[in-house]
Amino acid sequence: MSCNITFIGGGSFGTALGVMLGKKGLDVRIYDRNNNVIEDINVKRENMKYLPHVIIPSNVTAYNNIEEAIDGSKYLVLSVPSNAVREVSKSLKSYINEDVIIINVSKGIEEHTGKRLSQVIQEELPKNHVVVLSGPSHAEEVGLDIPTTVVVSSEDMKYAEEVQEIFMTSKFRVYTNEDLIGVEIGGAVKNIIALAAGISDGIGYGDNTKAALMTRGMNEIIRIGEKLGGKRETFSGLTGMGDLIVTCTSMHSRNRRAGILIGKGYSMEEAIEEVGMVVEGIKACKAFYELKKELDVSMPITDVLYKVLFEGKDPKYGVYELMTRDKKSEIY
Amino acid sequence: MSCNITFIGGGSFGTALGVMLGKKGLDVRIYDRNNNVIEDINVKRENMKYLPHVIIPSNVTAYNNIEEAIDGSKYLVLSVPSNAVREVSKSLKSYINEDVIIINVSKGIEEHTGKRLSQVIQEELPKNHVVVLSGPSHAEEVGLDIPTTVVVSSEDMKYAEEVQEIFMTSKFRVYTNEDLIGVEIGGAVKNIIALAAGISDGIGYGDNTKAALMTRGMNEIIRIGEKLGGKRETFSGLTGMGDLIVTCTSMHSRNRRAGILIGKGYSMEEAIEEVGMVVEGIKACKAFYELKKELDVSMPITDVLYKVLFEGKDPKYGVYELMTRDKKSEIY
Repeated sequence: MSCNITFIGGGSFGTALGVMLGKKGLDVRIYDRNNNVIEDINVKRENMKYLPHVIIPSNVTAYNNIEEAIDGSKYLVLSVPSNAVREVSKSLKSYINEDVIIINVSKGIEEHTGKRLSQVIQEELPKNHVVVLSGPSHAEEVGLDIPTTVVVSSEDMKYAEEVQEIFMTSKFRVYTNEDLIGVEIGGAVKNIIALAAGISDGIGYGDNTKAALMTRGMNEIIRIGEKLGGKRETFSGLTGMGDLIVTCTSMHSRNRRAGILIGKGYSMEEAIEEVGMVVEGIKACKAFYELKKELDVSMPITDVLYKVLFEGKDPKYGVYELMTRDKKSEIY
Repeated sequence: MSCNITFIGGGSFGTALGVMLGKKGLDVRIYDRNNNVIEDINVKRENMKYLPHVIIPSNVTAYNNIEEAIDGSKYLVLSVPSNAVREVSKSLKSYINEDVIIINVSKGIEEHTGKRLSQVIQEELPKNHVVVLSGPSHAEEVGLDIPTTVVVSSEDMKYAEEVQEIFMTSKFRVYTNEDLIGVEIGGAVKNIIALAAGISDGIGYGDNTKAALMTRGMNEIIRIGEKLGGKRETFSGLTGMGDLIVTCTSMHSRNRRAGILIGKGYSMEEAIEEVGMVVEGIKACKAFYELKKELDVSMPITDVLYKVLFEGKDPKYGVYELMTRDKKSEIY
């Protein structure tokens, strides 16, 4: 297929998707600022820091010069931490024309503004079409060709379908979903619940407890998500429930690992330090705590997590409080 | 509290709930046919076969005489395998009056008739009120006071609320839900998906794959469940999604363990033999395969599982087929 595609960010997910498309026969370029990453990809053919044990095919090339990396590319994949999305989008503006399609694979919402990442990108690159790709897809498994499913969405579904076509393989199944808001919000909120589930594991609670947190957490995702304009069916789908499951149960999940440490008694700062990579759930907890107050939505798990993270509440006592609230009906 | 309660069946879940209520101060009786179980409970104060490592308080007493066991009890808890529910209900008829409330904690639907278990009980005991208790609650954890949440439902919610009051503790949170059909169907279908998820683990697939199976499996639960009269919100709740999660991710789950063995190449019969207890998902797969054909509902994972279990299909090829179906939208 003759479609040039460049990944902005050679982290674990960008690299894994790049490898997958490379194996599919596409020419793939990866831009990264870190020269060690560039050299590892181009010379060692393995991204030692972010995606060890995955061999990178020869049609995947890394660049540390952004102009070179994106020259002639029709698709740019933003695979950077969520808090870098605005800055990176801004930096692309002078180099790309309006035919270039932006594919965002980061998850989160912008702190303080509460904006979805596709909105952030659109503000910086108003003339380009933005497609979002999300779902339960740990990079470590995508890189090893383990069967994975994701969802693409866009304001104009024509572009989402184009991206579906490009990414689909027999091991990577891509669905479309028109509910862009739901896709983005689900992917952001689930990190809050994953962090809470990790804390439960860290305390030493069981599978029953975690399943309860995840299910009641889904209710919070649905409540805030519907208020923000997303659809219930989307939150029950791959980008909501599916991604929640994978994030809450896999040791690949940084949010879960950070939660486990906090459950064991680490402070938030110590847990971030130990995990050594971005913990999106902490930022998401802060952002959604502000949003839910503003929108007057009940999110008891998010409340408790906020107090554990930022106000030093004992997580064990937090769980006790959640368990001993008034008797109630499940649906309301 | 002066309310006599008898468990019919001293298996793992019956014992765990009995221990919990005993600790709460209730007088609890457990009926079982197996004299070793009786002796273990009454003398060793530990159900060695079904719930080892959990100490049974002195106000929990086991009986092998059904009349004695239920004499004067206001509540009877049916904690037997799903395929014994009709026979056990029938056997109770001559001993109980219509004030006795039946609480069913088994999950499944009746083979061939496709009836829900509360319907089966109601047919045999038409004058008694039936309450269903379901949710993500592995006995091993309930017995150890690990925080757990469940749901109760009934045709007449007055009785569900009564049972909520009895079972609620600071470690065991009980919600009510009026959607009896949804509560029962969710608890039955989820075992099919848990078996499929176990097979995926057994083959060596990853967390991405399992999350995809669980999420797409939820769609099947919702489709057949709505057709049978249940509500979407219930399937997304504790008795649907919650129980699905715990069954798919916990090593306590027999359905999952049986699936893992099948994924590793065991036949269905060998897997049942090895697990050594009832595998509800196999019966559920058969029952819902018949139902879905009759009701014309699309359940691709159930189809593939049926072929793996009963027609010798290679599960790896089954997953390949699921992954390579036509490109489509997530919601339809």
